[in-house]
Amino acid sequence: MKTLELARNRKTSRSFKKTDVSPDLIRTTIDVAREAPSGANYQGWKFTVITNQDTKKRIREASEAGEKEFYGKVSGDWGQWLNRSKINWMKPYLEEAPVLIAVFARNDVPYSKESVWLAVGYMLLALEEQGLATVTYTPSSVKLVEDVLSVPEGYRLEVILPIGYSNDAKSKEPRLGIEAVLETIS
Amino acid sequence: MKTLELARNRKTSRSFKKTDVSPDLIRTTIDVAREAPSGANYQGWKFTVITNQDTKKRIREASEAGEKEFYGKVSGDWGQWLNRSKINWMKPYLEEAPVLIAVFARNDVPYSKESVWLAVGYMLLALEEQGLATVTYTPSSVKLVEDVLSVPEGYRLEVILPIGYSNDAKSKEPRLGIEAVLETIS
Repeated sequence: MKTLELARNRKTSRSFKKTDVSPDLIRTTIDVAREAPSGANYQGWKFTVITNQDTKKRIREASEAGEKEFYGKVSGDWGQWLNRSKINWMKPYLEEAPVLIAVFARNDVPYSKESVWLAVGYMLLALEEQGLATVTYTPSSVKLVEDVLSVPEGYRLEVILPIGYSNDAKSKEPRLGIEAVLETIS
Repeated sequence: MKTLELARNRKTSRSFKKTDVSPDLIRTTIDVAREAPSGANYQGWKFTVITNQDTKKRIREASEAGEKEFYGKVSGDWGQWLNRSKINWMKPYLEEAPVLIAVFARNDVPYSKESVWLAVGYMLLALEEQGLATVTYTPSSVKLVEDVLSVPEGYRLEVILPIGYSNDAKSKEPRLGIEAVLETIS
């Protein structure tokens, strides 16, 4: 089954080859996203595709400014996971990935956050099928990053997807067994 | 491309045939969901599969009690869309669909809402590939419905997916053109 195969093979990538990504693949990814269902069919999403090197650099800088503050405070399980995964405030992939897609949700419609993330699920499988990798990067300070982007009026930034061919050797994070997440009432 | 084909063909269904759904198909759908990425790999989701007729009936009743109140108040664009779509407080599909999957998000981990909805995106494509239909039903009063379900400790209800073979003749809701949702910075 194709969806299961894509879902199983797909892993998050935080490092990308310099190889360019054809604009057709990005367009197809957004064509998949916009077929997703949404609350009252509002389609309260917008996508900005960024390939401009200077804009990517400024997004990286704004993101890292926010992350420096966050990583100074995070502790507990989350902090330990970040340490173990060697994830820190540096986000070079925001500059190095050939393409970024910034995904925005409309503020004044019901369930826009839910709808946008459902569409992001569609996008991840579309990228995987096209041989592309990404990470769902949610900035610690959305405000700082929004200042760099031209945020569409009435929308807010939900996530940035840096996209490219994976150069990340890390294996997929292990998943819990199905028994850990499934109950039945029959 | 398979993902695009699935995304394009998939449409929401609010009416289901009585035909039973093999438990294997439901299990595969959850196997797809649990491959989704999640914030810090917390996998802050749980799935309850409900086939018990009495439980489904009580979920329907609790849902409709909440919807009656909501539909008495809704107006504007949203209200007009609901009227036009002939959607009202009655949710017979919660009782008639052979299977419900209640999807829960963990309260105390980062980005669990985002992760759950991303996984729901995976599930919709997995269901479509298996010939199954659903609607992402978000109760107007989550509390009333949670009272019927055994909500796992520390989790909250995000969505109920009634699942079955579609008996809904309605066509797919139209989508905006790609130009309406896409900007580029190159």
